[in-house]
Amino acid sequence: MYVILIYDINIEEDNKKGQRILNNSFKICKKYLNHVQKSVFEGEIDKAQLEKLHAELNRYIRKDLDSVIIFKSNNPRWLMKDFWGIKEDKTSNFF
Amino acid sequence: MYVILIYDINIEEDNKKGQRILNNSFKICKKYLNHVQKSVFEGEIDKAQLEKLHAELNRYIRKDLDSVIIFKSNNPRWLMKDFWGIKEDKTSNFF
Repeated sequence: MYVILIYDINIEEDNKKGQRILNNSFKICKKYLNHVQKSVFEGEIDKAQLEKLHAELNRYIRKDLDSVIIFKSNNPRWLMKDFWGIKEDKTSNFF
Repeated sequence: MYVILIYDINIEEDNKKGQRILNNSFKICKKYLNHVQKSVFEGEIDKAQLEKLHAELNRYIRKDLDSVIIFKSNNPRWLMKDFWGIKEDKTSNFF
C-alpha cells in the first residue's frame, strides 16, 4: 500500500525532550519511507512494516502532545503529487 | 477531486516575516480546505478552486524558502486516514 505520513511533534512544551523525540521520529520514518518535506514522508510499505513503524514511533509519540497522520491508499494510481515552492527534498540525508 | 495540502513555511530565516506568511497561508488554506493538523489541510475541491488557492498562496510563498506539497486523488475511495496520538484538530478555529 502507498502511505503518506505527516507528524507534528510538540517542541514548545519541553524543547529538549521535544527535539529528541523529533530526531528519533525522523530516523524511524526514514527507515521505512521517503522524506519529502520537513515532517512529511511517503512511499510503498506493506502491512507488517507499517505495524513495525507504528510500534517504533509509539515508543516516542506522546499521545497528548504529538500527532501523526497516515493517509493510506491501496491504489496509488489515483494519487498525484505537486510541489509549489521548493521541490522534493533530495538532500534529506542530513536532519 | 480530493486534496491533501501540506505547507512548510520557513520561519528561521526572518521570523517576523515568516510568521506573517504562515498566518496568511493558514487563513487562505482554511478558506478552501479542512485543517487536520498544524500544517496539514484536506478536502474536496474542484480544479478552478484549486487554481484560486494556488494563486492566493503564490502571493506569499517564497519559492526558495517555503514548500507546499499537494497530493491529489480523483478517487478518494482509495484513501484512508489514521491518527496516532492527538486526533483530528476539531478546535482549529483559532490559529
